[in-house]
Amino acid sequence: MLEQSIRAKLIDIVGASWFKDDMEALVSYSYDATPMQQALPDGVIFPSSTQQVSGILKIANEHRIPIVGRGAGSNLCAGTVPLEGGLVMVMNRMNKLLEIDADNLTATFQTGLNTKQFHLEVEKLGLFYPPDPSSMIISTLGGNIMECAGGLRGLKYGTTKDYVIGLEAVLPNGEIIRTGGKLYKDVAGYDLTKLLVGSEGTLAIVTEATVKLIPAPKYKKTMVAMYKDIYAAARSVSAIVGNRIIPATLEFLDNATIRVVEGFNKIGLPIEMEAILLIEQDGLDESVVEKDIIEIVRICKEQGAVEVKMAADAAEAEKLMLARRSALSTCARIRPTTILEDATVPRSKIAEMVIAINEIAKKYNVQICTFGHAGDGNLHPTCTTDARDADEIHRVEMAFEEIFEAAIDLGGTITGEHGVGVMKAPYLEWKVGAAGIELMKGIKQAFDPNNIMNPGKIFAKQSRKRVVIDHGSR
Amino acid sequence: MLEQSIRAKLIDIVGASWFKDDMEALVSYSYDATPMQQALPDGVIFPSSTQQVSGILKIANEHRIPIVGRGAGSNLCAGTVPLEGGLVMVMNRMNKLLEIDADNLTATFQTGLNTKQFHLEVEKLGLFYPPDPSSMIISTLGGNIMECAGGLRGLKYGTTKDYVIGLEAVLPNGEIIRTGGKLYKDVAGYDLTKLLVGSEGTLAIVTEATVKLIPAPKYKKTMVAMYKDIYAAARSVSAIVGNRIIPATLEFLDNATIRVVEGFNKIGLPIEMEAILLIEQDGLDESVVEKDIIEIVRICKEQGAVEVKMAADAAEAEKLMLARRSALSTCARIRPTTILEDATVPRSKIAEMVIAINEIAKKYNVQICTFGHAGDGNLHPTCTTDARDADEIHRVEMAFEEIFEAAIDLGGTITGEHGVGVMKAPYLEWKVGAAGIELMKGIKQAFDPNNIMNPGKIFAKQSRKRVVIDHGSR
Repeated sequence: MLEQSIRAKLIDIVGASWFKDDMEALVSYSYDATPMQQALPDGVIFPSSTQQVSGILKIANEHRIPIVGRGAGSNLCAGTVPLEGGLVMVMNRMNKLLEIDADNLTATFQTGLNTKQFHLEVEKLGLFYPPDPSSMIISTLGGNIMECAGGLRGLKYGTTKDYVIGLEAVLPNGEIIRTGGKLYKDVAGYDLTKLLVGSEGTLAIVTEATVKLIPAPKYKKTMVAMYKDIYAAARSVSAIVGNRIIPATLEFLDNATIRVVEGFNKIGLPIEMEAILLIEQDGLDESVVEKDIIEIVRICKEQGAVEVKMAADAAEAEKLMLARRSALSTCARIRPTTILEDATVPRSKIAEMVIAINEIAKKYNVQICTFGHAGDGNLHPTCTTDARDADEIHRVEMAFEEIFEAAIDLGGTITGEHGVGVMKAPYLEWKVGAAGIELMKGIKQAFDPNNIMNPGKIFAKQSRKRVVIDHGSR
Repeated sequence: MLEQSIRAKLIDIVGASWFKDDMEALVSYSYDATPMQQALPDGVIFPSSTQQVSGILKIANEHRIPIVGRGAGSNLCAGTVPLEGGLVMVMNRMNKLLEIDADNLTATFQTGLNTKQFHLEVEKLGLFYPPDPSSMIISTLGGNIMECAGGLRGLKYGTTKDYVIGLEAVLPNGEIIRTGGKLYKDVAGYDLTKLLVGSEGTLAIVTEATVKLIPAPKYKKTMVAMYKDIYAAARSVSAIVGNRIIPATLEFLDNATIRVVEGFNKIGLPIEMEAILLIEQDGLDESVVEKDIIEIVRICKEQGAVEVKMAADAAEAEKLMLARRSALSTCARIRPTTILEDATVPRSKIAEMVIAINEIAKKYNVQICTFGHAGDGNLHPTCTTDARDADEIHRVEMAFEEIFEAAIDLGGTITGEHGVGVMKAPYLEWKVGAAGIELMKGIKQAFDPNNIMNPGKIFAKQSRKRVVIDHGSR
């Protein structure tokens, strides 16, 4: 619990209705979308302006109160669980779309703005903001920025980092900084904008952002390629890109995922297939999109697709994409606990990674569905399990540890778009090395000397020792 | 001069022929492409491997010897002038193209590789590495990475930062780190890759890099739009992009630049025009490129272009682009000293910025040609002057100071693609604020606690006080 005097000061800033520390509020903000991670904060606060954020941070910094910034809490790395108590700062009231500047192709907004709502506003003007995390219906742009959210369109269009060009942020000492601007080129000192994107709330609270927009593609074609052989699917991914075609979306679903998704959605996915690729191409010109799709069909068949089916119309295409986006939530219906990871490898290593995941699942006797953004090597091995079964959970943990290791061995990373948070902190050293962690700690120190910003995230108290396992022919 | 024992250790690492401290060598590496900036180093060293770089840095760190990494020295911010003496480390021997990976659309190279040579190798495979600084015929990719080089294709394709996805770098203490990888998505901790890009040699020596490649555009059309009214040219820039067309190149040349370039190149540029736009569109499909060009012509005329001329063929197009790329070198032939800046503003503010530059030039009685990448707001006001005329040089400095100020007032920045170096260090605070500078110094401290990496760059001993000037109706 916070001291009464601090409590009074906070209420003085936001008003009595925007500071809560009743048990209902504390429990509501004790967890996020990550399973098995929960911790009670000491209070929840809802600022309505950058000035209020600044005032709150000054108090928190003075009294060494942890600050956990939070959008919709849809992250999957326990990034917004208040591990060390303190204040959860909910940004939802700061949700104004401040400007869409069609001359400069930029938009500026407060970071509590909902992602999907922003997409719709932008698209009304014939413009396009590509990052589309699967959580976009509920997520906030601030959350997307803090985790550097990716999504289905990453291969062709990049991720959040590629679009954010300016920020307003409040430092732990309450100081307000502005980085970048409506500028496509800006090399005035170190790039604080890109450093803050993906910093998971550990450096500053981002209150406003300016992003690049691009002209909206006008045409879109969607198709499904079906495979009896997982390698043939993976080879198709490499071959498409190797043929100099960059599809807007290039999603992979393995047999386990197909069964689960079809079981709940009944949209006619082929449950007898080992894998399917869900492919979308878009563009400004119909004939170009058409040409690409014909070529993609040819390549998929050449690589061994058993069948290739075009979506008949926009409605069917939408249904297919929704099915893919629902993969996590449908998996979650099978068993009480769903753990979704995002080991990422170079695109050419997808087949090897999927095979490794299946072997590891078998070895530890756990159920893993694998789906994900094959085009950018970003896979989501998803384990359906039961948090109440300690033995199984232990096996799940061992399996994921081995999956991270396999990803690293293939030149990949422990997280492609979900962030480190609590979940992957013990493994960060495997990717970035002890020297990399030391540099990151130094950067953290420069921003947040009192370690009040989302403490316990990114940096683990203890790194996991890496047990080198022989992955055989992989 | 270095102590004999240190000298011996350095020679021990690289061999006697690759360490030089005769006066000829010291003078050769005392300056770069920046006018009026010169300082002698204590030695020049040419490592041939990452291990050698590591060994050299360990010695330098132990003895607090400044290290100035250098590619071709073509930068324009005095970024490679050894202001505080020490060692210039020339990276040209580490110039291997290690791999072009067509499956993953990446290339990996040692940083001493020449930019143009790399372009040619990549283009042989139907692939494309867009960053094209005007110095690319001589520049190295390492230099491009350290300055975050842009170029003519920035608007459509982005700058160096948008392509670098992995680095091998040597820290001042000799430790070798690897960041990123062949990964389009990677959020394992803070983004050290993007932080190192544009860090101007002040954090680490980058020895290897992995960059994204994209499919090469197959068709290209080039045109010139001519204007009697500078505002009409600027309006055309906004209108083209406002009509959702992103040209590959959208270059602006003012009357002064047209006269100079035409005077030396005799390619038929219209010297009576107030401004021209040099526009190029490229793409994978001929009909799309054609359609865009027709639309661009329409827009330029609508906005007041007096004449629009298509390049008859590839040879004429190449001649036009070469003329543009030669703007700096032709300006340099008029008078003994040429100072080129790169104040950058939001695209919609180009007209205001050009007018401001012209007013400022008149006020201080100096000659300024303005050309640049209008599409991304990155202008290069270029002053032809004489370093021996102290009074004129003082006026030039005053003029540039006011130009920086005008850029900031218009929501712009002091440098779009040339870097801070020595030249803009006193003005960095105007853009990033005192708090921004403190954060950057903290980051510097985390990487380089002994301040041996390119000391005196980015951070000024003293920031310039900002005199607020009334720019009237602007």
